Amino acid sequence: MTDTTLSYEDLTALIAGIFRKAGMGASQAAAMAGVIAAGERDGAKSHGIYRIEGCLRTIKAGKAAADAVPVQAEDDGTAIVRVNAGGGFAPPAFALAAPVLAVRARKLGLAAMVVNDCTHFSALWHEAETMASFGLATMVMCPSYATVAPAGGTKPLLGTNPFAFAWPRIGKHPYVFDFATSVAARGEIELHRRAGKPLPEGWALDAEGRPTTDPEAALAGSMLPFGDHKGSAISTMIELLAGIMLGDLTSQGALDRLGGTTTLLPGHGELVLAFSPERFAAGRPGDPTARAEQLFEAILGQGARLPGQRRALARAKATSKGITLSETEMAQLARLGDLGLEAV
Amino acid sequence: MTDTTLSYEDLTALIAGIFRKAGMGASQAAAMAGVIAAGERDGAKSHGIYRIEGCLRTIKAGKAAADAVPVQAEDDGTAIVRVNAGGGFAPPAFALAAPVLAVRARKLGLAAMVVNDCTHFSALWHEAETMASFGLATMVMCPSYATVAPAGGTKPLLGTNPFAFAWPRIGKHPYVFDFATSVAARGEIELHRRAGKPLPEGWALDAEGRPTTDPEAALAGSMLPFGDHKGSAISTMIELLAGIMLGDLTSQGALDRLGGTTTLLPGHGELVLAFSPERFAAGRPGDPTARAEQLFEAILGQGARLPGQRRALARAKATSKGITLSETEMAQLARLGDLGLEAV
Repeated sequence: MTDTTLSYEDLTALIAGIFRKAGMGASQAAAMAGVIAAGERDGAKSHGIYRIEGCLRTIKAGKAAADAVPVQAEDDGTAIVRVNAGGGFAPPAFALAAPVLAVRARKLGLAAMVVNDCTHFSALWHEAETMASFGLATMVMCPSYATVAPAGGTKPLLGTNPFAFAWPRIGKHPYVFDFATSVAARGEIELHRRAGKPLPEGWALDAEGRPTTDPEAALAGSMLPFGDHKGSAISTMIELLAGIMLGDLTSQGALDRLGGTTTLLPGHGELVLAFSPERFAAGRPGDPTARAEQLFEAILGQGARLPGQRRALARAKATSKGITLSETEMAQLARLGDLGLEAV
Repeated sequence: MTDTTLSYEDLTALIAGIFRKAGMGASQAAAMAGVIAAGERDGAKSHGIYRIEGCLRTIKAGKAAADAVPVQAEDDGTAIVRVNAGGGFAPPAFALAAPVLAVRARKLGLAAMVVNDCTHFSALWHEAETMASFGLATMVMCPSYATVAPAGGTKPLLGTNPFAFAWPRIGKHPYVFDFATSVAARGEIELHRRAGKPLPEGWALDAEGRPTTDPEAALAGSMLPFGDHKGSAISTMIELLAGIMLGDLTSQGALDRLGGTTTLLPGHGELVLAFSPERFAAGRPGDPTARAEQLFEAILGQGARLPGQRRALARAKATSKGITLSETEMAQLARLGDLGLEAV
């Protein structure tokens, strides 16, 4: 097997070609491809090219609009920047409104981007990092589809509802985290099932709402939130703020819209909150950028890691040496590019 | 022993008298007393009159200014409402700026209150509920003092950094949570120590950074964040957003300022984010208030509880029947009122 090494830009162009073939406009395809190539570049394979087929399947099933053009609403004088994805994927909508959000946050100190009517593409860290590259601290959250029981409950109601945050660092990869508010990702349960291994305690309930370590029973039942009632509360907050408050789907609504399947990507809204540390710290002692570095040094100094550190290392390596894909992966990309939606 | 039953208003007036005696201005004493009486009313004894002595000790030690008058900054056209507590406790500063935050959030869709130079009084749920009473969804967070090790670390660096959230409900107690981002509160470890009981696994590290179930060793070492690296990341976010970004103390800075003791209340800043669901949902299908009720019904319908439910029940009872204090408690209040700072 011969590996192929590509630059980030070349891989982005290759993936963009696949989405163009599937009916996406040029700038939408570029935005999607940029996020997926970033997953490969940063060693986050689970957010990399492996995701392309799921996107194509969702388009083919009529649950995402390939030809959607995101539309940004007029400035209404508030701190809310609205963009409607028109049923397309989140990244093109986010890319359109990100610079506007940055300007608004710098002007008002904080501002929110609301993405409505979008289809999930699960890499919120990319959005948080993009805003951090504008010098803004950023929270991102969205519902998913109902696969998680609330703490003390018995049935799926909440999504794996990701929560991401980034803090800008000068000349460095930002401090960034992005995690599911379920104790484990659904994919991890699937991996245990394939390996025939029992789940750790506390991950899941069976269809009758009883604790289970059987992956099969867990997939037919519900996952559990991380951190018991605290994680459950945060996940519920995400349903409220990033679903209901935005006039968009809850995780239950997203699952219903897909007819109960979790093999397609869910539709939802997204909430991005951007904060200008400069505006917040104005007139106060100390430089927030320098003080944050002291905090990070203190964390690292006691042997703990910063979230996002592994991705930063992978990115540094890929930037100097390129991104390596296997022959099988390259063949798969070629196939998707040739056949488009016929391939899935 | 004869119990005494008081109304919320009477208890507030009684507690306010204690703070007046300790040197607080009338409106500052009323704000403090209102929060403490609310703790008693809502059955949250750990946030009730038991806290008064700690406040007085902190004043006596010169680490909180009894006679501070909070000052709200001029409207600078941003979404940030700033109030400086002048070294006094948080509740009077919050009370001053809360209506202004509400107006700003309704106007801009979202707005932030920054409280600077305040002394902690630990009931963020009260602030979140106050904003919810104005019809706003609200997040509140602040650092504490360094008693918690980051996940993967060995030494105290983060605080128990509370995170609170409220969602307004019409004619009902809001959906509200308020929790420490440590796995347990420091008081819970203290209770285990007094009872001679070992701690559950995963709560704490000893002074050498090794996992321990010995409460004594835990108090000399560090607590752990809830939900492992996820809770640790959220706690770090709180240091960044509600400490460093506001130009205020981190948990480490607060501990240093107190000379390393955790027997006094820490100084810090506080960040309150208020969202107008009406503004966010404008032009979108569905009424956010009604949709949130459906979500709450679905949670309750599967046997799970809503956070804040227990407090709501206690409040309903206290509102109709009054708040009952023991003879010992009443004697203690009388003593604090007579002696003021001499009592501690």
